[in-house]
Amino acid sequence: MTSTQPARGTRDFLPDDLRRRRYVIGVVEDVYRRYGFESLETPAIENIETLTGKYGDEGSKLIFKILRRGEHEASGAADLALRYDLTVPLARVVAQYRAQLPKYFKRYQIQPVWRADRPARGRFREFYQCDIDAIGSTSLVVEAELLAAVGGVLERLGFADFTIRLNDRRALTAMLSAAGIAEPQHGEALVALDKLDKIGVDGVAADLAARQVPADAARRCLDFLAAAAERAADPEAVLALVDNFAGADERGRAAAADLRTIVDLSSATGAASRLRIDPSLARGLSYYTGAIMEIVVPDLAGSLGGGGRYDSLIGMFLGQDVPACGFSLGLERIIVVMTERGMFPAEIASAGPDLMVTFLDDSCRHAALALAADVRTAGGTVEIFPEATRKLDRSLKYAVSRQAGLLAIIGSDELAAGQVTVKDLDTRSQERTAPARVVELVTARRRDRPHAPGDR
Amino acid sequence: MTSTQPARGTRDFLPDDLRRRRYVIGVVEDVYRRYGFESLETPAIENIETLTGKYGDEGSKLIFKILRRGEHEASGAADLALRYDLTVPLARVVAQYRAQLPKYFKRYQIQPVWRADRPARGRFREFYQCDIDAIGSTSLVVEAELLAAVGGVLERLGFADFTIRLNDRRALTAMLSAAGIAEPQHGEALVALDKLDKIGVDGVAADLAARQVPADAARRCLDFLAAAAERAADPEAVLALVDNFAGADERGRAAAADLRTIVDLSSATGAASRLRIDPSLARGLSYYTGAIMEIVVPDLAGSLGGGGRYDSLIGMFLGQDVPACGFSLGLERIIVVMTERGMFPAEIASAGPDLMVTFLDDSCRHAALALAADVRTAGGTVEIFPEATRKLDRSLKYAVSRQAGLLAIIGSDELAAGQVTVKDLDTRSQERTAPARVVELVTARRRDRPHAPGDR
Repeated sequence: MTSTQPARGTRDFLPDDLRRRRYVIGVVEDVYRRYGFESLETPAIENIETLTGKYGDEGSKLIFKILRRGEHEASGAADLALRYDLTVPLARVVAQYRAQLPKYFKRYQIQPVWRADRPARGRFREFYQCDIDAIGSTSLVVEAELLAAVGGVLERLGFADFTIRLNDRRALTAMLSAAGIAEPQHGEALVALDKLDKIGVDGVAADLAARQVPADAARRCLDFLAAAAERAADPEAVLALVDNFAGADERGRAAAADLRTIVDLSSATGAASRLRIDPSLARGLSYYTGAIMEIVVPDLAGSLGGGGRYDSLIGMFLGQDVPACGFSLGLERIIVVMTERGMFPAEIASAGPDLMVTFLDDSCRHAALALAADVRTAGGTVEIFPEATRKLDRSLKYAVSRQAGLLAIIGSDELAAGQVTVKDLDTRSQERTAPARVVELVTARRRDRPHAPGDR
Repeated sequence: MTSTQPARGTRDFLPDDLRRRRYVIGVVEDVYRRYGFESLETPAIENIETLTGKYGDEGSKLIFKILRRGEHEASGAADLALRYDLTVPLARVVAQYRAQLPKYFKRYQIQPVWRADRPARGRFREFYQCDIDAIGSTSLVVEAELLAAVGGVLERLGFADFTIRLNDRRALTAMLSAAGIAEPQHGEALVALDKLDKIGVDGVAADLAARQVPADAARRCLDFLAAAAERAADPEAVLALVDNFAGADERGRAAAADLRTIVDLSSATGAASRLRIDPSLARGLSYYTGAIMEIVVPDLAGSLGGGGRYDSLIGMFLGQDVPACGFSLGLERIIVVMTERGMFPAEIASAGPDLMVTFLDDSCRHAALALAADVRTAGGTVEIFPEATRKLDRSLKYAVSRQAGLLAIIGSDELAAGQVTVKDLDTRSQERTAPARVVELVTARRRDRPHAPGDR
C-alpha cells in the first residue's frame, strides 16, 4: 500500500486549516489593495536558467529541479525548476512586459514557493509568501509605503508587539570597511554577523576569527553594534552613531541620510513607533542594494517577513537597471504565531451549512433536492444527507456534527402535505411548514449571524 | 541575457488577467459553497509513488518528475512529482484523514495541476482545475447534486448553451460485450470510440479494424451508437435503446436504471434540460466505475469539464473501498470561451484606485502620506505618485492611465493652508479643500459605483 502522508515538509490543508489561512490572506489582500498594489501570479515552474545565479550558493542547493521528459529523461538533466521566491519571477515579468505595465508598477503576489530545506517549526518545503513590490522609483516614499502596508497588515491581524528592524546594505559595507575589514572579506563577515541574534557577541567573535577576520577589526565592529543596540529605541541616536562610525565613507553617509528620511516619512503613517534602526541587520539574499528591513516578534526565532531595495536585479533580465523595492510576509509564520496566541476570531471556527436536508425514503429525494435548490437560489448553503434514513437521531447527530443551523426533514407525510418539518438546531424548536418558510428562516438566520472577518 | 519568457506552456497573469480569473473563481466558489462543499488544498508536489499507476500509460508519460537532491542528484532519479490532477491527491487525503473528516465529505479544490502535454489552444502545462467531489455515499443524489452544482456555475457565468453528456462505465462494458467485442479488447475499443466526435463513424470503424476488433462487432456497436445519437434529445428513448441492446447484461441493466434515476432526480434541480444520455461517452481516466459525465459547448473542441463515480480509487490508498463521485471544471477553457464570446461583466475591466495623490516637492511628502493613510483607513484604495513633480500634466496623465477616480495635489500653498487640491477625473471639476473632505469624496464615490460581480 502506498503511503498516504503528504511529501516531507509539505502539508494538506483541511477545511478548518483553510478557513484560518484564507482569513489571513483576505486581510493581507485587503490592506495591500488599499495601498494600490495589484495582483500578479506567475507559474510554479520556471526555466532553470531564470533561477540560477540569483540566490547565492546556499540558496541554489535548495532549488527543486524538474527532470527533462521523454527521450531526455534518462539523461538525468533538469530543464525546469520550482519557484524559489516571488522576487526573481517578478523581475523576469517586469523585463518581459515592461511596455504594458504602469511606470510605477505596484504588485502583490500571494503564492507558494518551494525550498528543499530541512523542515522545522514554521519552516516547510512548500510555503506561501505574501509579497509587495514597487517598481520604477528610487523615491523613499516607496520604502515608507511598504513599511506602512506590512505594518498595517499585522495591526489588522491583531499583532501589537512587532518591531520593524531597518538597515541599509550600504551602511553595512561602510561599517565593515570603517572597522578595517577588507571588502573581499565582507561576505564572510556578514554571514557571521547575521548570527548575532542566535549565538551572541562571543559566538560571532569566534566565528569571525574562524573566518580569518582580524581580531581588532572584529572587535571595533562588535563594539559599534553593541553601542547601537544600547540606543535601539532612539532611531536618531543610532543614526548619529552610524554617521560617526562610518560617515567618512560616502556609502555610510548616504545610507544614514536615507534611513533618516524613511524614519521621518514613517511618522505620517503610524509605522514610526515600530521602527528600530539596527546596523547589525544583514538579510541573506545578495540582490539588495539599499534599505533592508525585517519584522520580528518576541516569541518567534527568525522573522515574520523581510525585504529591501534591489535596484539591479531587474537589470539581470532586462540589460538595463530598473529601481525596485519589496517586502515579503511569511504566511506560515504569521499563522503559527496567531494559532499559538489564539488570535483568530471565533467566527472563523464555525462554518456549518445554513441547512441540512434529510429524507426518510427515496420517494422524497425529489422534494429534498427541490428544497435545497430553493434555499441555494436565495443564497443559503445546504447539505443534503444523501441517503434515505428513518433513523432521525442519526441524521440529527450528523447535522449537529456538521454545525448546521437548521435541519429539514422530509418524509411521506410531509410529501403528501407539500410541507417540510424544520428543526432549529440551536433552540431545538421544530415546526411543520411550507418550503418557502424554510427559505425565509435561512435568510433571516444569515442576516442575523455574526459576519466572519475573512468571509467573502 | 536570460530569456524572460515564462516556461513553455505556462503563463504569467498580469492584473487584468487575474481580475477575470478571480471573477470566475469567485463564482465557482460561491456556487460550490452553497452546495455544502468545503475547501481543501493539497501540496503541488507528491511522493512519486502516490501518482504512479493511477493515470494509465499515456497519462504517466506526462507527469513532471522532480530530481532527488544533494548527493543523490547525480543519480538522475526522481523521488517527487508535480500533481497531475486533484482526484488522486484527494483519494490520498481521504485515506490519511478518514477519522477526522465527515462521513459524507464534500470538498471543492481549485488549484493548478501540471502535465507535460503539447501546448495548444486552451491546453497548457500548468492549468487550474475546479473540482468538487462527494465522498462516502453510493446514493445517486450525489450525482444529481454534482450536475446541479456545475450546471449552476455555468449558468451564473452566463453560459446558455451547454450540454451535459451522461453515460455509465458499466453501460460501456455491457454495450461492447453485447456487440460481441471480447473483454480483453474493451480498452482498445474505447480508445477508438473516444474519437467519434473528432474523426466520425468511418474513422472510428477504420481505427477499430486497425485494433483487430471484428468488423461485425464494430458495426453493431456503431449502429447502436448512431441510433442513440438520433434520439439524443430524449433521455428516456436512449435509455430504452440501452436496455434493448445491452439489457441482457446485468451491468447494462444496472447502468440504465441508475442513469434513469439521475435524469429523474435532476428534474428537481434544473439540470434536467441540459442532460443528454450519450452511450458513446467514454472519458479517458481508468478509475471510473459508474456514472461518467462531461460538459460541452458548441464552439469548443473538447469539454469544459468532466467527472464521474470512482468507488475503488480510495481503496488503492486505504485498502478498503470508499464510494466517491466528482466533477472537474477546467478554468482555462471556461475563460477561453468567455473571453472569445465577450461574457465578462464590464465592471471587471475598471479597477483603478479611488485616489491618486501627487506632491509638488519633497516638503509635501508627509502630507501626501498622511492623506493616503486617512483614505485607506476609511477603506479607500490610494496610489501615491512616488516622485515630486511640478509637471501637473504628467501626474494627471498618469492618474488617468491608472483609471484613478480622484487626483489629490499637494504643493507648498496647500501645505501652508492645511488643505489639498482635489480633482474629479470623471467630471474634471476641481476644488481646494480639507483632507477630511477628500475622505468623504472617496467614501461617497465608493458607495455609488457599480459593484463588480467578482469584487470581494
